[in-house]
Amino acid sequence: MATISDVAKLAKVSVATVSRFLNDSGYVGTKSRESIENAIKELNYVPSEVARSLSTKQSDIIGLIIPDIKNPFFPELARAVEDTAFEYGYTVILCNSDENAMKEKHYLEKLTKKYVAGIILTSIIEQENHWQNVKLPIVALDRPIDSKVATVTTNNQKGAELATSYLLECGAKNLLCISGPKNMTSSQTRIEGFKAALHRNGVDAHIIESPYDFEIAEKILYDYLKANPSIDGIFACSDASAIGALKAAHRLKLRIPEDIQIVGFDGIQVGNVVTPSLTTVAQNIYLLGQTAAELLIKQIEGQKLAQESICIDPELIIRETTRKERSE
Amino acid sequence: MATISDVAKLAKVSVATVSRFLNDSGYVGTKSRESIENAIKELNYVPSEVARSLSTKQSDIIGLIIPDIKNPFFPELARAVEDTAFEYGYTVILCNSDENAMKEKHYLEKLTKKYVAGIILTSIIEQENHWQNVKLPIVALDRPIDSKVATVTTNNQKGAELATSYLLECGAKNLLCISGPKNMTSSQTRIEGFKAALHRNGVDAHIIESPYDFEIAEKILYDYLKANPSIDGIFACSDASAIGALKAAHRLKLRIPEDIQIVGFDGIQVGNVVTPSLTTVAQNIYLLGQTAAELLIKQIEGQKLAQESICIDPELIIRETTRKERSE
Repeated sequence: MATISDVAKLAKVSVATVSRFLNDSGYVGTKSRESIENAIKELNYVPSEVARSLSTKQSDIIGLIIPDIKNPFFPELARAVEDTAFEYGYTVILCNSDENAMKEKHYLEKLTKKYVAGIILTSIIEQENHWQNVKLPIVALDRPIDSKVATVTTNNQKGAELATSYLLECGAKNLLCISGPKNMTSSQTRIEGFKAALHRNGVDAHIIESPYDFEIAEKILYDYLKANPSIDGIFACSDASAIGALKAAHRLKLRIPEDIQIVGFDGIQVGNVVTPSLTTVAQNIYLLGQTAAELLIKQIEGQKLAQESICIDPELIIRETTRKERSE
Repeated sequence: MATISDVAKLAKVSVATVSRFLNDSGYVGTKSRESIENAIKELNYVPSEVARSLSTKQSDIIGLIIPDIKNPFFPELARAVEDTAFEYGYTVILCNSDENAMKEKHYLEKLTKKYVAGIILTSIIEQENHWQNVKLPIVALDRPIDSKVATVTTNNQKGAELATSYLLECGAKNLLCISGPKNMTSSQTRIEGFKAALHRNGVDAHIIESPYDFEIAEKILYDYLKANPSIDGIFACSDASAIGALKAAHRLKLRIPEDIQIVGFDGIQVGNVVTPSLTTVAQNIYLLGQTAAELLIKQIEGQKLAQESICIDPELIIRETTRKERSE
């Protein structure tokens, strides 16, 4: 007897889409609708109770708690979560925590008490453990909170090693690493990658701290580069601080990439718009959000996770803030 | 006898905050909590049933339907809506419509049927009228949908006149206006403002159309500026197309602002990051979102609106893509 999976396969849509079609419980495009109808006829499929129950879950709302949607990293992440939720018939409540422990706790309590089926959390607050009271499925996104909680992150160490090695290959001799705030695990891991790449090359380097903010980074870097004119290569733990460095270098009349080379981290759109355009370690931001939403929905729908922790490789995108040819 | 407003006044917080405190129905900061407790003691305030009922509304979720959170205009708007909702004890469901009539209809139906108290809608689809079936409070944000629906917009005509007059004052003689998609009212109103300013000065000009997208605008402008080298001033109906024009001018080795001046529209953050930084008509994006959320919550809570339609003035921000001194 044909199953819902057979219908999905023949119609070339997801099982969730067939489920929504059968239960009239969410959007199904005209083309998918036709394909499903044809597949049902062809396979002589009769919906079972199991197929119907796929959509009888109590709540179809996902809570997404992020620091700030205005931070250029998060719109694409939120978009990916919402697209994936939409595909499976869920909607998304957006909460900005401002990296404030009280606000994060408030949202966790409010969402849990009232209406959500699960929560995706990007938390900076590692010393807190509000989430331990949450009795719903939860996925940590971008920033791990506990080994027992399903987690989706970028391979930050590998990304930092890629960036640093490339700066060295392009002839940079005096490297500066711009780290993020001390309490961010991802920034710490990127510094480790930076150091590992340097260590293999026997080079020493400077490390300074800056928030992930264009304007503050520009001020910090202006002073630092002025006082340390020998620096000829920068690895920044975020594109925001890399762009701040680029603006500071402009103001100091340093030529990029001739006098100083810069590599960022994140892959936000504005890196492609600045002049010269920014060489960066691009996270697969969309895939991060999509994977987190899929992990959460699987848990909500009672499926077993094959992997509790997923680490996604970033990619070095070479643009104009590094020298094209490798120096010998 | 003291009222909830007296408590709010003395404690220097909003009535909504006192209500949340009394009903234990949402986040109240430690400092506000203390102030409220002191005010209650000092005024010998006894909560009335009316005060309590402020929080007995059925749903405390607001639906926000926008085209795409990845469009740099919308993160700040969404943030303002969420901040305001948070202040009043509401949460926000984020929906991306992709300017797709089917998706917009799906979300309006889903949100209305299931769980929201009201909807904020940025709709491009003027020929559609899905929203007429919505029996809940609704606010049109950025793009008007009907004179009967409460609306919050920017004064687009005035903004375009400001930009165009300034280009003329700075000595531009051959002006080009980059419009947005034809079906966007806001873009049409900006073109009217552009024409009105020109008309007063007896100048003629070119108008071309481009989507609000950096890369597509760059391609369109590269070809257009190459074919029309006499153009020395551009008013773009969005910062995205202005930045596309800036990149195209760079590629054509035109000096900005010496050979060509550019003014954008929107005031998104990236305009401040490009080189040279972009002169633009900045919308008060945060105030737009905040005002829309307040108008919606007033309707949800049964208050009468003093104004059904609010038009917010934009501001000309002068940066580096226009000449500093006025030519004579």
